[in-house]
Amino acid sequence: MRLQKLGLLFVLIALSAGSSAQKTKKAKNDINPGEMMVRIAEIEIDSNFVDEYVSILKEESEASVRLEPGVICIYPMFQKEQPAQIRLLEIYASKEAYESHLQTPHFKYYKEATLKMVKDLKLIDMEAIDAETMPKIFRKLN
Amino acid sequence: MRLQKLGLLFVLIALSAGSSAQKTKKAKNDINPGEMMVRIAEIEIDSNFVDEYVSILKEESEASVRLEPGVICIYPMFQKEQPAQIRLLEIYASKEAYESHLQTPHFKYYKEATLKMVKDLKLIDMEAIDAETMPKIFRKLN
Repeated sequence: MRLQKLGLLFVLIALSAGSSAQKTKKAKNDINPGEMMVRIAEIEIDSNFVDEYVSILKEESEASVRLEPGVICIYPMFQKEQPAQIRLLEIYASKEAYESHLQTPHFKYYKEATLKMVKDLKLIDMEAIDAETMPKIFRKLN
Repeated sequence: MRLQKLGLLFVLIALSAGSSAQKTKKAKNDINPGEMMVRIAEIEIDSNFVDEYVSILKEESEASVRLEPGVICIYPMFQKEQPAQIRLLEIYASKEAYESHLQTPHFKYYKEATLKMVKDLKLIDMEAIDAETMPKIFRKLN
């Protein structure tokens, strides 16, 4: 009987640990799809600076996603046929999260360091077509 | 002493359950970034069919990500200023995963049902700038 009680105790501890881990995860990802800001940035780089630009952009996107809870995704790519054509998918939790991103040291450094390299920049506001199931869409990369 | 042993047993069971869950997760997401196919699709829709097109596309992307392990992400959007301008970020685990996607009933249905609605279609092959840390990038949406 005493052993059974002890067993039950361990099961309860295990369940409670699992449940609080889940709560933490949920709180961390508590993002309202209606407030999200989704954008495609189309950037053309001076062909003399492509490698240098890509290296600075890579650091900036990595730092933004790692350090800013409101930066959900900055996904940088270049066109295979024209590597000077950069594209970014940017998803921010809200307009406020984006405004705050603009004030970070890593963004300010990126902006200043790459100013002379950028020949053209278009920022295109997008609407996600499937905002509700969006959280599932990137599941496989995790 | 017997109670201590029982305690240890429960701890070992808990640890082993955790570790095998992690292994399953790792196997499921065992994607080689070097083989991935990343693409932006730029699609212009006849303005008479935007709602109908978006509804079919939404179903097709959702089904692809849910049913096909090799479809890592199909992320459909439209431009806020020009809703007939559709953009998709598509990430496939490999070229084979993409070829197999083209043979699925849900893709074939989408292709046939939307053929008359599409005014222009550009498929642009992209290279991810940060393929190594890509798995972390979408973490916040999960």
